[in-house]
Amino acid sequence: MFCRSCGHAMERRIPEMEDRERAVCPRCGFVDYVNPINVVGTVPVWEDRQVLLCLRNIEPRKGLWTLPAGFLEAGELTADGAVRETTEEAGAHIELGRLFSVLDVPYAQQVHLYWLATMTDTHLDPGPETIEARLFDFADIPWDQLAFLTVRRTLELFLADRERGVFDTHYDSIPIPPRLRAS
Amino acid sequence: MFCRSCGHAMERRIPEMEDRERAVCPRCGFVDYVNPINVVGTVPVWEDRQVLLCLRNIEPRKGLWTLPAGFLEAGELTADGAVRETTEEAGAHIELGRLFSVLDVPYAQQVHLYWLATMTDTHLDPGPETIEARLFDFADIPWDQLAFLTVRRTLELFLADRERGVFDTHYDSIPIPPRLRAS
Repeated sequence: MFCRSCGHAMERRIPEMEDRERAVCPRCGFVDYVNPINVVGTVPVWEDRQVLLCLRNIEPRKGLWTLPAGFLEAGELTADGAVRETTEEAGAHIELGRLFSVLDVPYAQQVHLYWLATMTDTHLDPGPETIEARLFDFADIPWDQLAFLTVRRTLELFLADRERGVFDTHYDSIPIPPRLRAS
Repeated sequence: MFCRSCGHAMERRIPEMEDRERAVCPRCGFVDYVNPINVVGTVPVWEDRQVLLCLRNIEPRKGLWTLPAGFLEAGELTADGAVRETTEEAGAHIELGRLFSVLDVPYAQQVHLYWLATMTDTHLDPGPETIEARLFDFADIPWDQLAFLTVRRTLELFLADRERGVFDTHYDSIPIPPRLRAS
Protein backbone atom coordinates (compact mmCIF):
# COMPACT_ATOMS: atom_id res chain seq x y z
CA MET A 1 0.00 0.00 0.00
CA PHE A 2 1.26 3.45 -0.99
CA CYS A 3 0.75 7.02 0.24
CA ARG A 4 -2.06 8.90 -1.54
CA SER A 5 -0.30 12.15 -0.71
CA CYS A 6 3.34 11.48 -1.80
CA GLY A 7 3.46 7.96 -3.34
CA HIS A 8 5.87 6.43 -0.75
CA ALA A 9 5.29 2.92 0.67
CA MET A 10 3.09 3.04 3.81
CA GLU A 11 3.84 1.50 7.21
CA ARG A 12 1.41 0.13 9.83
CA ARG A 13 1.73 1.92 13.17
CA ILE A 14 -0.24 3.74 15.86
CA PRO A 15 -0.27 7.50 15.12
CA GLU A 16 0.43 9.97 17.93
CA MET A 17 -2.65 10.72 20.13
CA GLU A 18 -4.42 7.61 18.76
CA ASP A 19 -5.09 4.12 20.08
CA ARG A 20 -5.11 1.88 17.01
CA GLU A 21 -2.86 0.91 14.11
CA ARG A 22 -3.27 2.85 10.83
CA ALA A 23 -1.44 3.03 7.51
CA VAL A 24 1.01 5.93 8.04
CA CYS A 25 3.49 7.41 5.55
CA PRO A 26 7.04 7.41 7.01
CA ARG A 27 8.07 10.13 4.52
CA CYS A 28 5.30 12.78 4.72
CA GLY A 29 3.28 11.63 7.79
CA PHE A 30 -0.04 11.19 5.92
CA VAL A 31 -2.46 8.85 7.75
CA ASP A 32 -4.74 6.79 5.49
CA TYR A 33 -7.94 6.41 7.54
CA VAL A 34 -10.32 3.63 6.52
CA ASN A 35 -13.96 4.33 7.35
CA PRO A 36 -17.22 2.53 6.59
CA ILE A 37 -19.06 3.53 3.42
CA ASN A 38 -22.76 4.38 3.10
CA VAL A 39 -25.04 2.46 0.76
CA VAL A 40 -28.35 4.24 0.05
CA GLY A 41 -31.52 2.87 -1.52
CA THR A 42 -35.32 2.75 -1.54
CA VAL A 43 -38.29 0.45 -0.96
CA PRO A 44 -40.38 1.49 -4.02
CA VAL A 45 -44.02 0.51 -3.51
CA TRP A 46 -46.84 0.52 -6.08
CA GLU A 47 -50.44 0.93 -4.88
CA ASP A 48 -49.70 -0.53 -1.43
CA ARG A 49 -49.60 -4.02 -2.93
CA GLN A 50 -46.35 -4.42 -4.92
CA VAL A 51 -42.65 -3.75 -4.34
CA LEU A 52 -40.03 -3.06 -7.02
CA LEU A 53 -36.98 -5.34 -7.15
CA CYS A 54 -34.04 -5.36 -9.57
CA LEU A 55 -32.25 -8.44 -10.90
CA ARG A 56 -28.53 -7.65 -10.58
CA ASN A 57 -26.46 -7.62 -13.77
CA ILE A 58 -23.15 -7.04 -11.92
CA GLU A 59 -21.08 -8.75 -9.27
CA PRO A 60 -21.34 -9.26 -6.37
CA ARG A 61 -24.52 -11.37 -6.32
CA LYS A 62 -25.22 -11.13 -10.06
CA GLY A 63 -28.51 -12.86 -10.98
CA LEU A 64 -30.15 -12.21 -7.59
CA TRP A 65 -32.86 -9.69 -6.65
CA THR A 66 -32.19 -6.44 -4.81
CA LEU A 67 -33.89 -3.23 -3.81
CA PRO A 68 -32.43 -0.35 -5.85
CA ALA A 69 -29.37 0.88 -3.91
CA GLY A 70 -25.75 1.90 -4.31
CA PHE A 71 -22.85 3.85 -2.88
CA LEU A 72 -23.43 7.40 -1.63
CA GLU A 73 -21.27 9.90 -3.53
CA ALA A 74 -19.16 12.65 -1.97
CA GLY A 75 -21.17 15.88 -1.58
CA GLU A 76 -24.50 14.09 -2.07
CA LEU A 77 -27.41 13.94 0.41
CA THR A 78 -28.30 10.39 1.44
CA ALA A 79 -31.93 11.03 0.34
CA ASP A 80 -30.75 12.29 -3.06
CA GLY A 81 -28.45 9.29 -3.46
CA ALA A 82 -31.36 6.93 -2.75
CA VAL A 83 -33.44 8.60 -5.49
CA ARG A 84 -30.49 8.61 -7.92
CA GLU A 85 -29.89 4.87 -7.46
CA THR A 86 -33.60 4.14 -7.99
CA THR A 87 -33.45 6.10 -11.25
CA GLU A 88 -30.16 4.54 -12.42
CA GLU A 89 -31.01 0.93 -11.62
CA ALA A 90 -34.75 0.82 -12.40
CA GLY A 91 -35.74 4.08 -14.14
CA ALA A 92 -38.66 4.22 -11.69
CA HIS A 93 -40.58 7.41 -10.90
CA ILE A 94 -40.96 7.79 -7.13
CA GLU A 95 -41.93 10.12 -4.34
CA LEU A 96 -39.54 9.65 -1.45
CA GLY A 97 -41.04 8.85 1.95
CA ARG A 98 -39.36 8.59 5.35
CA LEU A 99 -35.94 7.19 6.22
CA PHE A 100 -36.90 3.60 7.02
CA SER A 101 -33.92 1.38 7.86
CA VAL A 102 -30.38 2.08 9.04
CA LEU A 103 -28.43 -1.18 8.96
CA ASP A 104 -24.84 -1.74 10.04
CA VAL A 105 -22.90 -4.26 7.97
CA PRO A 106 -19.60 -4.33 9.91
CA TYR A 107 -18.04 -7.28 8.04
CA ALA A 108 -18.39 -5.32 4.77
CA GLN A 109 -17.45 -1.97 6.42
CA GLN A 110 -20.75 -0.45 5.28
CA VAL A 111 -23.81 1.31 6.71
CA HIS A 112 -26.97 0.91 4.60
CA LEU A 113 -29.81 3.46 4.63
CA TYR A 114 -33.15 2.67 2.96
CA TRP A 115 -36.02 5.11 2.38
CA LEU A 116 -39.68 4.32 1.84
CA ALA A 117 -40.82 5.41 -1.62
CA THR A 118 -44.16 5.55 -3.44
CA MET A 119 -44.10 4.82 -7.17
CA THR A 120 -46.06 7.48 -9.08
CA ASP A 121 -46.55 5.22 -12.15
CA THR A 122 -45.34 1.81 -13.33
CA HIS A 123 -42.81 3.20 -15.80
CA LEU A 124 -39.55 1.18 -15.62
CA ASP A 125 -36.34 1.64 -17.57
CA PRO A 126 -33.54 -0.49 -16.05
CA GLY A 127 -29.94 0.68 -16.49
CA PRO A 128 -26.88 -1.45 -17.39
CA GLU A 129 -26.46 -2.72 -13.80
CA THR A 130 -29.91 -4.35 -13.92
CA ILE A 131 -31.04 -7.37 -15.98
CA GLU A 132 -34.69 -6.78 -15.18
CA ALA A 133 -36.77 -4.53 -12.91
CA ARG A 134 -40.06 -6.08 -11.80
CA LEU A 135 -42.99 -5.42 -9.46
CA PHE A 136 -43.67 -8.26 -7.01
CA ASP A 137 -46.87 -8.76 -5.04
CA PHE A 138 -45.89 -8.72 -1.35
CA ALA A 139 -46.85 -12.42 -1.14
CA ASP A 140 -44.52 -13.30 -4.04
CA ILE A 141 -41.24 -11.71 -2.88
CA PRO A 142 -38.46 -14.15 -3.94
CA TRP A 143 -37.03 -14.59 -0.42
CA ASP A 144 -34.61 -17.34 -1.46
CA GLN A 145 -33.19 -15.29 -4.35
CA LEU A 146 -32.42 -11.99 -2.60
CA ALA A 147 -28.93 -10.56 -3.17
CA PHE A 148 -28.20 -9.07 0.26
CA LEU A 149 -29.17 -9.53 3.92
CA THR A 150 -29.87 -5.77 4.21
CA VAL A 151 -32.49 -6.15 1.47
CA ARG A 152 -34.06 -9.12 3.27
CA ARG A 153 -34.06 -7.29 6.63
CA THR A 154 -35.53 -4.10 5.11
CA LEU A 155 -38.32 -6.05 3.37
CA GLU A 156 -39.07 -7.95 6.61
CA LEU A 157 -39.28 -4.67 8.55
CA PHE A 158 -41.44 -3.14 5.81
CA LEU A 159 -43.99 -5.98 5.85
CA ALA A 160 -44.07 -5.98 9.68
CA ASP A 161 -44.69 -2.21 9.85
CA ARG A 162 -47.32 -2.45 7.11
CA GLU A 163 -49.07 -5.21 9.09
CA ARG A 164 -49.26 -3.07 12.23
CA GLY A 165 -50.13 0.06 10.20
CA VAL A 166 -47.27 2.30 11.45
CA PHE A 167 -44.00 2.96 9.62
CA ASP A 168 -41.05 3.81 11.86
CA THR A 169 -37.30 4.27 11.28
CA HIS A 170 -35.47 1.08 12.27
CA TYR A 171 -31.88 0.45 13.33
CA ASP A 172 -30.34 -3.01 13.17
CA SER A 173 -27.04 -4.72 12.45
CA ILE A 174 -26.42 -7.66 10.15
CA PRO A 175 -24.33 -10.62 11.38
CA ILE A 176 -21.85 -12.10 8.94
CA PRO A 177 -23.63 -14.62 6.66
CA PRO A 178 -22.46 -18.28 6.54
CA ARG A 179 -21.27 -17.92 2.92
CA LEU A 180 -18.71 -15.25 3.99
CA ARG A 181 -17.49 -16.95 7.19
CA ALA A 182 -13.96 -18.35 7.24
CA SER A 183 -14.20 -22.17 7.41
CA MET B 1 -2.33 12.57 -5.68
CA PHE B 2 -0.85 9.07 -5.91
CA CYS B 3 -2.17 5.52 -6.32
CA ARG B 4 -2.77 3.69 -3.02
CA SER B 5 -2.29 0.40 -4.84
CA CYS B 6 0.96 0.97 -6.82
CA GLY B 7 2.27 4.48 -5.92
CA HIS B 8 2.00 5.97 -9.46
CA ALA B 9 0.63 9.52 -10.01
CA MET B 10 -3.18 9.50 -10.49
CA GLU B 11 -5.19 11.05 -13.34
CA ARG B 12 -8.73 12.50 -13.31
CA ARG B 13 -11.02 10.73 -15.77
CA ILE B 14 -14.39 8.97 -16.09
CA PRO B 15 -13.93 5.21 -15.52
CA GLU B 16 -15.60 2.73 -17.89
CA MET B 17 -19.31 2.09 -17.09
CA GLU B 18 -19.42 5.22 -14.91
CA ASP B 19 -20.77 8.74 -15.31
CA ARG B 20 -18.46 10.95 -13.25
CA GLU B 21 -14.78 11.83 -13.00
CA ARG B 22 -12.66 9.90 -10.48
CA ALA B 23 -8.98 9.64 -9.60
CA VAL B 24 -7.79 6.69 -11.74
CA CYS B 25 -4.30 5.13 -11.91
CA PRO B 26 -3.01 5.06 -15.51
CA ARG B 27 -0.53 2.28 -14.60
CA CYS B 28 -2.59 -0.29 -12.64
CA GLY B 29 -6.19 0.91 -13.20
CA PHE B 30 -7.01 1.43 -9.49
CA VAL B 31 -9.95 3.84 -8.96
CA ASP B 32 -9.76 5.93 -5.77
CA TYR B 33 -13.42 6.40 -4.77
CA VAL B 34 -14.20 9.22 -2.34
CA ASN B 35 -17.26 8.62 -0.17
CA PRO B 36 -18.86 10.46 2.73
CA ILE B 37 -17.73 9.48 6.23
CA ASN B 38 -19.98 8.70 9.22
CA VAL B 39 -19.73 10.65 12.45
CA VAL B 40 -21.45 8.93 15.40
CA GLY B 41 -22.37 10.37 18.78
CA THR B 42 -24.89 10.55 21.62
CA VAL B 43 -27.27 12.92 23.44
CA PRO B 44 -26.40 11.90 27.03
CA VAL B 45 -29.20 12.96 29.39
CA TRP B 46 -29.16 12.97 33.21
CA GLU B 47 -32.46 12.66 35.08
CA ASP B 48 -34.52 14.14 32.22
CA ARG B 49 -33.25 17.61 33.09
CA GLN B 50 -29.58 17.93 32.01
CA VAL B 51 -27.56 17.18 28.88
CA LEU B 52 -23.85 16.42 28.73
CA LEU B 53 -21.67 18.63 26.52
CA CYS B 54 -17.90 18.56 25.94
CA LEU B 55 -15.64 21.60 25.48
CA ARG B 56 -13.42 20.73 22.51
CA ASN B 57 -9.66 20.61 23.09
CA ILE B 58 -8.85 19.98 19.40
CA GLU B 59 -9.39 21.70 16.08
CA PRO B 60 -11.70 22.24 14.33
CA ARG B 61 -13.83 24.41 16.65
CA LYS B 62 -11.54 24.13 19.66
CA GLY B 63 -13.00 25.93 22.71
CA LEU B 64 -16.64 25.35 21.68
CA TRP B 65 -19.18 22.89 23.08
CA THR B 66 -20.18 19.64 21.38
CA LEU B 67 -22.13 16.48 22.04
CA PRO B 68 -19.69 13.55 22.33
CA ALA B 69 -19.13 12.28 18.76
CA GLY B 70 -16.43 11.19 16.34
CA PHE B 71 -15.59 9.17 13.25
CA LEU B 72 -16.98 5.66 12.89
CA GLU B 73 -14.17 3.10 12.58
CA ALA B 74 -13.97 0.31 9.98
CA GLY B 75 -15.69 -2.86 11.23
CA GLU B 76 -17.51 -1.02 14.03
CA LEU B 77 -21.28 -0.79 14.55
CA THR B 78 -22.58 2.80 14.49
CA ALA B 79 -24.20 2.23 17.92
CA ASP B 80 -20.91 0.90 19.34
CA GLY B 81 -19.01 3.85 17.86
CA ALA B 82 -21.42 6.29 19.53
CA VAL B 83 -20.82 4.64 22.93
CA ARG B 84 -17.04 4.54 22.35
CA GLU B 85 -16.90 8.27 21.56
CA THR B 86 -18.97 9.06 24.68
CA THR B 87 -16.48 7.08 26.76
CA GLU B 88 -13.39 8.56 25.07
CA GLU B 89 -14.48 12.21 25.14
CA ALA B 90 -16.40 12.38 28.42
CA GLY B 91 -15.84 9.13 30.35
CA ALA B 92 -19.60 9.08 30.89
CA HIS B 93 -21.53 5.92 31.82
CA ILE B 94 -24.60 5.58 29.60
CA GLU B 95 -27.39 3.29 28.49
CA LEU B 96 -27.91 3.74 24.77
CA GLY B 97 -31.43 4.60 23.60
CA ARG B 98 -32.85 4.86 20.08
CA LEU B 99 -31.17 6.19 16.95
CA PHE B 100 -32.34 9.79 17.09
CA SER B 101 -30.93 11.98 14.28
CA VAL B 102 -29.45 11.21 10.87
CA LEU B 103 -28.02 14.42 9.44
CA ASP B 104 -26.41 14.92 6.05
CA VAL B 105 -23.52 17.38 5.96
CA PRO B 106 -22.77 17.39 2.22
CA TYR B 107 -20.28 20.29 2.28
CA ALA B 108 -18.12 18.31 4.74
CA GLN B 109 -18.78 14.97 2.98
CA GLN B 110 -20.17 13.51 6.20
CA VAL B 111 -23.31 11.83 7.53
CA HIS B 112 -23.84 12.26 11.30
CA LEU B 113 -25.82 9.78 13.42
CA TYR B 114 -26.79 10.62 17.01
CA TRP B 115 -28.32 8.23 19.56
CA LEU B 116 -30.34 9.09 22.62
CA ALA B 117 -28.56 8.01 25.81
CA THR B 118 -29.44 7.91 29.50
CA MET B 119 -26.62 8.61 31.94
CA THR B 120 -26.57 5.99 34.69
CA ASP B 121 -24.56 8.23 37.09
CA THR B 122 -22.80 11.61 36.96
CA HIS B 123 -19.28 10.14 36.74
CA LEU B 124 -17.21 12.09 34.16
CA ASP B 125 -13.61 11.54 33.06
CA PRO B 126 -12.84 13.62 29.96
CA GLY B 127 -10.14 12.38 27.56
CA PRO B 128 -7.38 14.42 25.89
CA GLU B 129 -9.75 15.73 23.16
CA THR B 130 -11.93 17.43 25.80
CA ILE B 131 -11.08 20.45 27.99
CA GLU B 132 -14.14 19.95 30.17
CA ALA B 133 -17.26 17.75 30.23
CA ARG B 134 -20.24 19.40 31.91
CA LEU B 135 -23.95 18.81 32.52
CA PHE B 136 -26.17 21.70 31.38
CA ASP B 137 -29.76 22.27 32.43
CA PHE B 138 -31.86 22.26 29.24
CA ALA B 139 -32.59 25.98 29.77
CA ASP B 140 -28.85 26.78 29.97
CA ILE B 141 -27.55 25.12 26.77
CA PRO B 142 -24.85 27.50 25.38
CA TRP B 143 -26.52 27.93 21.96
CA ASP B 144 -24.07 30.63 20.83
CA GLN B 145 -21.02 28.53 21.73
CA LEU B 146 -21.87 25.20 20.03
CA ALA B 147 -19.14 23.71 17.82
CA PHE B 148 -21.24 22.22 15.00
CA LEU B 149 -24.60 22.73 13.28
CA THR B 150 -25.35 19.00 13.63
CA VAL B 151 -25.05 19.40 17.42
CA ARG B 152 -27.39 22.43 17.34
CA ARG B 153 -29.93 20.62 15.13
CA THR B 154 -29.85 17.47 17.26
CA LEU B 155 -30.38 19.46 20.48
CA GLU B 156 -33.26 21.41 18.86
CA LEU B 157 -34.90 18.15 17.75
CA PHE B 158 -34.33 16.63 21.20
CA LEU B 159 -36.01 19.53 23.04
CA ALA B 160 -38.91 19.57 20.55
CA ASP B 161 -39.52 15.82 20.93
CA ARG B 162 -39.23 16.10 24.71
CA GLU B 163 -41.82 18.90 24.67
CA ARG B 164 -44.34 16.79 22.73
CA GLY B 165 -43.46 13.67 24.76
CA VAL B 166 -42.54 11.38 21.83
CA PHE B 167 -39.01 10.62 20.61
CA ASP B 168 -38.72 9.75 16.93
CA THR B 169 -35.79 9.18 14.54
CA HIS B 170 -35.24 12.35 12.49
CA TYR B 171 -33.60 12.91 9.12
CA ASP B 172 -32.41 16.33 8.03
CA SER B 173 -29.61 17.97 6.04
CA ILE B 174 -27.42 20.87 7.09
CA PRO B 175 -26.90 23.79 4.67
CA ILE B 176 -23.39 25.21 4.45
CA PRO B 177 -22.83 27.74 7.26
CA PRO B 178 -21.90 31.37 6.45
CA ARG B 179 -18.41 30.98 7.99
CA LEU B 180 -17.54 28.28 5.42
CA ARG B 181 -19.05 29.97 2.36
CA ALA B 182 -16.69 31.34 -0.30
CA SER B 183 -16.92 35.13 -0.25
